Amino acid sequence: MRYPNLLNADEIDKMKAKKTYSRADVGFVIPALPGMDESQIQTPCLVIDLDRFENNVRKMANELRPFNVTLRPHAKMHKSVDVARRQLEFDNTVGICCQKVSEAEVFSRAGITDILITNQVCDPSKISRLCGIAQSGCRVTVCVDDLNNVTALAEEARQQKTHLHCLVELDCGAGRCGVAAPTQVLELALAIDGFDSLTFDGLQAYQGSIQHEKSYKKREEVMVGVISQVNSSVASLRNAGLMCDVISGGGTGTFLLEAASGVYTEIQCGSYAFMDADYGQINNQAGQRLDQGQWENALFLLTSVMSTAKKGQAVCDAGLKVQSVDSGLPTIFNRDDIRYISCSDEHGVIEDIENKLEINDKLRLVPGHCDPTCNLHDWYVCIRSGKVESLWPVSARGKAW
Amino acid sequence: MRYPNLLNADEIDKMKAKKTYSRADVGFVIPALPGMDESQIQTPCLVIDLDRFENNVRKMANELRPFNVTLRPHAKMHKSVDVARRQLEFDNTVGICCQKVSEAEVFSRAGITDILITNQVCDPSKISRLCGIAQSGCRVTVCVDDLNNVTALAEEARQQKTHLHCLVELDCGAGRCGVAAPTQVLELALAIDGFDSLTFDGLQAYQGSIQHEKSYKKREEVMVGVISQVNSSVASLRNAGLMCDVISGGGTGTFLLEAASGVYTEIQCGSYAFMDADYGQINNQAGQRLDQGQWENALFLLTSVMSTAKKGQAVCDAGLKVQSVDSGLPTIFNRDDIRYISCSDEHGVIEDIENKLEINDKLRLVPGHCDPTCNLHDWYVCIRSGKVESLWPVSARGKAW
Repeated sequence: MRYPNLLNADEIDKMKAKKTYSRADVGFVIPALPGMDESQIQTPCLVIDLDRFENNVRKMANELRPFNVTLRPHAKMHKSVDVARRQLEFDNTVGICCQKVSEAEVFSRAGITDILITNQVCDPSKISRLCGIAQSGCRVTVCVDDLNNVTALAEEARQQKTHLHCLVELDCGAGRCGVAAPTQVLELALAIDGFDSLTFDGLQAYQGSIQHEKSYKKREEVMVGVISQVNSSVASLRNAGLMCDVISGGGTGTFLLEAASGVYTEIQCGSYAFMDADYGQINNQAGQRLDQGQWENALFLLTSVMSTAKKGQAVCDAGLKVQSVDSGLPTIFNRDDIRYISCSDEHGVIEDIENKLEINDKLRLVPGHCDPTCNLHDWYVCIRSGKVESLWPVSARGKAW
Repeated sequence: MRYPNLLNADEIDKMKAKKTYSRADVGFVIPALPGMDESQIQTPCLVIDLDRFENNVRKMANELRPFNVTLRPHAKMHKSVDVARRQLEFDNTVGICCQKVSEAEVFSRAGITDILITNQVCDPSKISRLCGIAQSGCRVTVCVDDLNNVTALAEEARQQKTHLHCLVELDCGAGRCGVAAPTQVLELALAIDGFDSLTFDGLQAYQGSIQHEKSYKKREEVMVGVISQVNSSVASLRNAGLMCDVISGGGTGTFLLEAASGVYTEIQCGSYAFMDADYGQINNQAGQRLDQGQWENALFLLTSVMSTAKKGQAVCDAGLKVQSVDSGLPTIFNRDDIRYISCSDEHGVIEDIENKLEINDKLRLVPGHCDPTCNLHDWYVCIRSGKVESLWPVSARGKAW
């Protein structure tokens, strides 16, 4: 089957005329066709409001212009080649971030030529596949926090006659991967620098655990410490004769702090492009919610009401299999009168005190957490002014290994 | 590409000899090849231990033999044609349950001829597709809790010159879809009975919210009330001249109570086939954990250690994108010395006080909740005695609409 975003209006009309592509058939393979009204989309399904999405992408490129940094948006959030291409249209955007080798394989085969894997790659098969991406002409950077891993990467790159760029991952408080002490950073950087098949590029310094802190002031306090830690590491590397061309980090909650730090060179936000309910409720420097003016909700989980058998509540068709609730339940967009109150595998329960909802009513949910929600879907249905404009495949959906 | 479970050993040997299918290529499309050791599987990935799975499936068929009930396993849990076929090998297993039209489409196209959708189908396109399944020769049953929906189902079935079976969904306390009062049940049953294109078969009566209650006694108390409610509805229908051929319900936490009730005719458990950490910790009648003797953990999320940079912990490659943590974090199979303590998008943090774990060590996680975890994966890697025996596609993965 051809992707429906490759079909033009004439072809769709022909299909409709021939009845080779009935509305029921569409429902089997894809949730919508270009030209449909939003009300005809098969739910539950992810919807991108294109005007809002394009505003977010443009705004991020513009917000970073005053600073001496480039943008490398994180594709782990959207997993879509179509989204990445639109992010890469801006001249200060240098490439993308991925989190897994299988994700990077999808994006590099789609023609994206500069990928940073913000993660460790340790399994021998994965290291072999990583070098395969570099061999195909993509500039590949990977993070390291282990000396034996540096040797394994170097050896495989040498055998495959290719080259990898490396960042030492600094643990700046997230407590996950990465080393914290400048001596460990130096030891790893020197090891990388000692191999012809590797280049030491600098540091990965992402503070992931502070991004969703509601208070801007608290985020700022933490980032002051992180920036000082990064500066110490850069200084100790410089003393040893190793220059950092790249200091990469920053998330939707903190990126202006990294951008203004003077030490970060590259910003790797992801969520700003779509937004979600969890990021929506944190505050910016002016004390406003992030979804009020800063970034627009551009991603929605479209759902239909399927039962109103009980007074005061409705049941919709969006449950745990179409969204991740790890960061809280979804909100209902532009509705203060009803509330999504609980979730099971295939159902959501909506409090509807005034019994306003009817069966087949459609609602736009704002997912609690965009990254793992996008990873559950095969398609983004892209709408503009209430009409389906195109369908974008979630190209790297499920690519976790 | 052909599915690897259609390849025999000779073909695999030929591919290996020709080097058309290198280990690195395998990693790109599939996580393993038949014949590999468990240690060679690309992680994170779902693994079925076939001996344990086959024991569970056989045991459920046998446990129900003393009772006057049939088994209709819920395919929403595994979403796999291969799993369903193995469940249907037993003579007291009459068909499968699905939760969505798109799921039912996958299973009916794979040749399964008796499907109950344990859910409401209300959208006009979905009703059209549902009738399409019936038209293709599959016996289709659907649940209803709304009079207008009954009319819509009847009208579309008539127009498509096909037939649907209907169960009235009884809300037995889960507070989701379904009607509770016998008068409402009767009204819906009479409406169904009034249409030539529909057959009133009986009741859907699944108490979903009690299944995971730890105490067997509490589950039993609740089910006594449910069974009494079902009996009342059956009696009021009988008084109106409507017989219930089917009373369908039961989950892994309660199925023996439904089976012994004398009123249920059909058991629709799902999780018993794979088990998960949440069901594992509830007690059976003898006060034993359900994963101790009753059902065996047959589904594992295989993960690899990717960072040991910090003392006392390791980081593994299984996070939120390969498992649902709505019902709690996974446990680590057969290991009391280490503990999975936190989860982010792509990482899991493992407490490892004695620093036993090394990079590339593989661990078997028992997922917290099997249904939404299976829905995240494209493949089950099926192993026996430490070797990959076959790969089964998660056939209806992502089919949510």
